[in-house]
Amino acid sequence: MTRTDWPTTRLLDLLEIDLPIIQAPMAGAQGPELAAAVSAAGGLGSLPCAMLSPDDALEHAKQVRSATNRGFAMNFFCHTPPMVDGEKEARWRDRLVSYYDELGAEFPGEAGTARAPFNEAFCEIVEAVGPAVVSFHFGLPDDKLLQRVRRTGAKILSSATTVREAKLLADKGVDAIIAQGAEAGGHRGMFLTDDIAGQVGTLALVPQIVDAVDVPVIAAGGIADGRGIAAAFMLGASGVQIGTAYLATPEARISDLHKDALRAARDEDSVLTNVFTGRPARGLKNRLIEEVGPISPDAPAFPLAAGSVAPVRAKAESAGMSDFTPLWSGQAAPLARAMPAGKLTAALAEEALTRLKAAAG
Amino acid sequence: MTRTDWPTTRLLDLLEIDLPIIQAPMAGAQGPELAAAVSAAGGLGSLPCAMLSPDDALEHAKQVRSATNRGFAMNFFCHTPPMVDGEKEARWRDRLVSYYDELGAEFPGEAGTARAPFNEAFCEIVEAVGPAVVSFHFGLPDDKLLQRVRRTGAKILSSATTVREAKLLADKGVDAIIAQGAEAGGHRGMFLTDDIAGQVGTLALVPQIVDAVDVPVIAAGGIADGRGIAAAFMLGASGVQIGTAYLATPEARISDLHKDALRAARDEDSVLTNVFTGRPARGLKNRLIEEVGPISPDAPAFPLAAGSVAPVRAKAESAGMSDFTPLWSGQAAPLARAMPAGKLTAALAEEALTRLKAAAG
Repeated sequence: MTRTDWPTTRLLDLLEIDLPIIQAPMAGAQGPELAAAVSAAGGLGSLPCAMLSPDDALEHAKQVRSATNRGFAMNFFCHTPPMVDGEKEARWRDRLVSYYDELGAEFPGEAGTARAPFNEAFCEIVEAVGPAVVSFHFGLPDDKLLQRVRRTGAKILSSATTVREAKLLADKGVDAIIAQGAEAGGHRGMFLTDDIAGQVGTLALVPQIVDAVDVPVIAAGGIADGRGIAAAFMLGASGVQIGTAYLATPEARISDLHKDALRAARDEDSVLTNVFTGRPARGLKNRLIEEVGPISPDAPAFPLAAGSVAPVRAKAESAGMSDFTPLWSGQAAPLARAMPAGKLTAALAEEALTRLKAAAG
Repeated sequence: MTRTDWPTTRLLDLLEIDLPIIQAPMAGAQGPELAAAVSAAGGLGSLPCAMLSPDDALEHAKQVRSATNRGFAMNFFCHTPPMVDGEKEARWRDRLVSYYDELGAEFPGEAGTARAPFNEAFCEIVEAVGPAVVSFHFGLPDDKLLQRVRRTGAKILSSATTVREAKLLADKGVDAIIAQGAEAGGHRGMFLTDDIAGQVGTLALVPQIVDAVDVPVIAAGGIADGRGIAAAFMLGASGVQIGTAYLATPEARISDLHKDALRAARDEDSVLTNVFTGRPARGLKNRLIEEVGPISPDAPAFPLAAGSVAPVRAKAESAGMSDFTPLWSGQAAPLARAMPAGKLTAALAEEALTRLKAAAG
């Protein structure tokens, strides 16, 4: 397998990687082990930093560095931190209070948030680490911070869920765009719209973004085996970003509850929901989604909704129930295979190339 | 271009066609001209019969026959005709009455339906015509009718929106399955679920259905150019079904309002809505969808919802407004090109093969 076996080497050249596979950053579901394994295998591992303190982000980056000398990505969220809205918080607690009663949980002291957006402190970590790639979700940070990231020499990626978002990212000078189709698990990167009804499937989205921008496009959403990767290249993508498939690897840091749910998942079992964090994200249906969501107008702004879910989630999980756990998953979960992340990365690439080679009848 | 240029000839062999492109039946948006043009070009043209009387279906079939000696498909809906629910009708009229007032429209005498399911009368037409293919939407007719269709020698197709639906269709003995991803325009073929939140994107759906059934799989939804066709083959499909792209051809019978809306459409402009017919279907956002939908619990069962929309739609259309018109469209509308349907069919195949040939680096 050589670089030129791929229909295009644009992304390989840009990111200086051997395989056009980016492991999707999955905050709360992975640490440095997964990122290191994928980077070592020739893909691009990603370190999700959105739920870490700057110190922990630095520590995770060091751990990847000590495991591999290949490049990796650090990933950050770019939401605007919301003001706590007392009325909205009260409505949300009202909506959840019966679960508190049922499980004997106690409301948290204040609406907390474990998800800070990319800021001065994170930027300093990026400057200290100098990762090969910095990827953003929910748009981009302000121009000054973005400029500082650029000056570190890092290649900059961000996700677009529509052509409009892709054009804005291209105008802002990102080096490549992740076209995140509606099939994708976890949080939608959407930042110019909050209308999930209009979110676009990967097969329709990728070619339209390819037509709209000049930078390489990375297909994401619904890709979990070599067939999806080969399809992405046919659509004009220069690479793929894969999340859910990596949740089946031993390097993923997810609960047995989450792993079991993924193993049992069917194609139709995931939905976009805002009940866990306040922002639309794809996860497997469970009790909270069915009874309060999938989209609740009462959920406080991201990431505040998570605060009042946490205590009932903890109580339920300690009783072995995933009723209140965000079981993040894309729509291709049934295609995932349990194998080490490095082997999976190599297998995915191998399968895709075999498929592409057999394409011409 | 020869048959063996394609990665597989399974669908070509099964349906005795030259190009693995099925023109999607689009009730109310096309007649025999479009079907004949696509079949004559080597694809499979489809005659939508759901909104026709049996006599008109026969007449349309004769017109295709007189235009080409190639095979074609006749398409039927398989819904259970609903009982009129007086209370529900009244609620729906309440929901719409302000539009009646605004436009000076008059409520129809009774809740009518212009969409009959496949029945004895339609079955007799199929027996008289003997089309090469009969395709169904919303499942399948009862076993007796299905058996009669099979005895005509017609190959039988139906749409699946989930793996579960695909397995049921395969168990019932269909000859091929249309995997209809969430990107597709018009009515969702869903028949084992009414939960649109769980509907699956084409890229995730096709390989999972391919893994679940032995019959050829036809990819549908979000495919409007050669890139999408090539991608579908990489996913394991043996062919594609394409709708929206054919709405830009002169053979389509849609209003200028609809054509203009499609030309202006962006990737993010369509949604699944039940406000036009009572069943989820993908169309471009307009006033009725924004104000009453996209999903309204007040919409009567399919196809009854259409009855009370018709008068305001007619009034608005005669004033040049598409506010109450179902502007059916898939998510790849921006990829459509205005050219004759036969030429488009040839161009799509040509582009796909070029793409597939270039796949191997």
